[in-house]
Amino acid sequence: MTERATEEKVAEAQTAALELAKADDEVRSAALHDIADAIEDAEARILEANEKDVAEGEEMLEAGEYSRALVDRLELSPSKLESIAEMVRSVAEQDDPLGRTLSARRLDEDLELYKVGVPIGVIGTVFESRPDALVQIAALSLKSGNAVILKGGSEASHSNRVLYEIIRDATADLDVPEGWAQLIEAREDVNTMLDMDDAIDLLMPRGSSEFVSYIQDNTQIPVLGHTEGICHVFVDREADLSMAEDVAFDAKVQYPAVCNAVETLLVHEAVAEDFLPEIVERYREADVTLRGDGATRQIVDLDPATDDDWDTEYGDLELSIKVVDSLATAIDHINTHGSKHTESILTEDSDRASTFMRSIDAASVFHNASTRFADGYRYGLGAEVGISTGKIHARGPVGLEGLTTYKYYLEGDGQLVATYSGESAKPYRHEEFAGEWVPGHLAEE
Amino acid sequence: MTERATEEKVAEAQTAALELAKADDEVRSAALHDIADAIEDAEARILEANEKDVAEGEEMLEAGEYSRALVDRLELSPSKLESIAEMVRSVAEQDDPLGRTLSARRLDEDLELYKVGVPIGVIGTVFESRPDALVQIAALSLKSGNAVILKGGSEASHSNRVLYEIIRDATADLDVPEGWAQLIEAREDVNTMLDMDDAIDLLMPRGSSEFVSYIQDNTQIPVLGHTEGICHVFVDREADLSMAEDVAFDAKVQYPAVCNAVETLLVHEAVAEDFLPEIVERYREADVTLRGDGATRQIVDLDPATDDDWDTEYGDLELSIKVVDSLATAIDHINTHGSKHTESILTEDSDRASTFMRSIDAASVFHNASTRFADGYRYGLGAEVGISTGKIHARGPVGLEGLTTYKYYLEGDGQLVATYSGESAKPYRHEEFAGEWVPGHLAEE
Repeated sequence: MTERATEEKVAEAQTAALELAKADDEVRSAALHDIADAIEDAEARILEANEKDVAEGEEMLEAGEYSRALVDRLELSPSKLESIAEMVRSVAEQDDPLGRTLSARRLDEDLELYKVGVPIGVIGTVFESRPDALVQIAALSLKSGNAVILKGGSEASHSNRVLYEIIRDATADLDVPEGWAQLIEAREDVNTMLDMDDAIDLLMPRGSSEFVSYIQDNTQIPVLGHTEGICHVFVDREADLSMAEDVAFDAKVQYPAVCNAVETLLVHEAVAEDFLPEIVERYREADVTLRGDGATRQIVDLDPATDDDWDTEYGDLELSIKVVDSLATAIDHINTHGSKHTESILTEDSDRASTFMRSIDAASVFHNASTRFADGYRYGLGAEVGISTGKIHARGPVGLEGLTTYKYYLEGDGQLVATYSGESAKPYRHEEFAGEWVPGHLAEE
Repeated sequence: MTERATEEKVAEAQTAALELAKADDEVRSAALHDIADAIEDAEARILEANEKDVAEGEEMLEAGEYSRALVDRLELSPSKLESIAEMVRSVAEQDDPLGRTLSARRLDEDLELYKVGVPIGVIGTVFESRPDALVQIAALSLKSGNAVILKGGSEASHSNRVLYEIIRDATADLDVPEGWAQLIEAREDVNTMLDMDDAIDLLMPRGSSEFVSYIQDNTQIPVLGHTEGICHVFVDREADLSMAEDVAFDAKVQYPAVCNAVETLLVHEAVAEDFLPEIVERYREADVTLRGDGATRQIVDLDPATDDDWDTEYGDLELSIKVVDSLATAIDHINTHGSKHTESILTEDSDRASTFMRSIDAASVFHNASTRFADGYRYGLGAEVGISTGKIHARGPVGLEGLTTYKYYLEGDGQLVATYSGESAKPYRHEEFAGEWVPGHLAEE
């Protein structure tokens, strides 16, 4: 596609965003139900397109270009499509993230300031090759009143194109503005998007660490996401060791390919001799490759960990283990080597838990729970567009609320700043009050 | 200063930020009161340093390098110092922006997720040559638990250095971590800071449009601020024309050099013949230079406005005027030419006010009030570190709340994700509840 065609798509999205910001929740939610129905109605067409992606994926697998896991993730089935439609309906049923009055303050008599939740505008998204990703991101964008640019993995291009057309056509006859969702397909179109900082308000890339870094380094548009998930579990000297064993096992083995899986296990030296032999045996039964520091290797026989191990996201059945001499050392190791994603302490001592949780600089800090809980669905956010390890705007799993911002509305009856300035300045009242913004209510009194 | 020295300062701030995040409000507020006292006690020393800045400024004024206004803004006096100390005390007295539980959700029995307000970390600030700016920014940073890098205008360098030393020394013996505030002085040190995206969490530049653009274009650190304030007042066909005249006058003339002053006046054609002659006469009495579009010039005798005028922030007693044929045209003009800062409609019709306010994409949208109210102090935020026209994180005037983010805390008793996955998955409860995070309370039950 030409650069110009991509620019036109973004411009259309920009126009649509201004309209969509005014659409009521009823309109947005009804459109989502129509999308869910349309996905169910088009089952045969979607599966046919998906078969092409899977067939091409199998060829790439044979050629050694794709992994088995990638091809498996590509594949849709009638039951998967059903759960995708249900996911869209569940997004429709979430509370409206827009229009809420977040605060109301009377600056003076008949001068009322309201802070009201509004959509961000145009969101640019780039995501991996799971066909459900396109539907999930489009649904969250529509519910939150944002126009969205969708760029999926080329491996799922046939599925993505059909799913996009179904979503677009399902909302064409509704009060939803045309052009609210735009599909781009080529890698070079992503670069066009990166330059459009006047038109795109936020980028949410998902994918490999290298890819997200590339996006961050090549745009002036704010980026929400994460490059790495280097998460730790710290088994404190006051841990319940049986609980610790189960949690440390779950955090690595339950699904090792994801960003919230643990990469380094830290063990307090006071419990290392009791704890390490048991957990190492359990990890080995699950085929986890282990590496340890010197103190660990005095207790269990492991390959040595190098300095690089502490900064590595394995994303696989691999784990590094380190024995630490204190809570402070554990905190320091995590704040130095962690990626600010998710960190967990296992301890029965609430003071030590508190110190850990307050001291660790990460989006999610857990006490006696597996790092794998860091996820928009598990957190009850409905679904997530991504997980952010930055500290600006939204942090951790990003759901509907993370796709909103706010606007200040001031309702007056002709007030001038001159009245409140200078020697005989009228003072402000600055009283908080409970009230919803009702446009123009002062003018009507 | 060498690049290395700046890097060391930022590293010190980073270490201090982790400690400061744990400091109670009592500690932070007491430190602010000590700073206020220290500023009063050091009056003679501060005024002496300030005299040097003013003397050098006068020389630059004679050489034609500085404006009279700039030199006037540099100058401190005993009463100005008193009001700076009072400002610091008022920041100390604000509600604690940290530690609040923003939401609490029970994911399952004894598995509780809390979203808690925390500081951002290290804030890099660059600001103009008013010596009170350094104190205001340092005070807001300390109250919100953030470490801060301070870079003021070189015109105020003597004043800034002394004020910085007083602030640093006043907090040296307290429980506030050493190194929480760092002063950098050379322009090239700003460039060193721009490269430190691993250490600095947020940049807040204030200054000229060119300077803020330069910062935005040369860093991967998130930037909060604004380059331009192109604000509009729209006099609707349903406006109370007497009110409109007063507001349009205030918005331009009360203080024309600031970002929330109006630059373009839009007038509905139905009231243009009644409204324009009166307001033009009033502007002329105040020496406002006026330019108008064709329709305006058929009613009043003005110089013609060019296309550039609609995109110009005059920042002075200058104004462009345009007659529009409808509310929709006014909205479209503002969304095309405005800088998303502050926009105001004057109308007695609440439906038209509502359409305007919902349709305009700006941080602040006003109804029957002067654009000059867009300001952290007037909004009741206590004070502001800047005004943001971006849509990510904080929007409009940024006070203490804009200097915070949140962390998710999960309290469990050993829960595993495996329990909630697969065919016999235990369902989540996802119940919101009213409760504050108490570290480790489940472990103690």
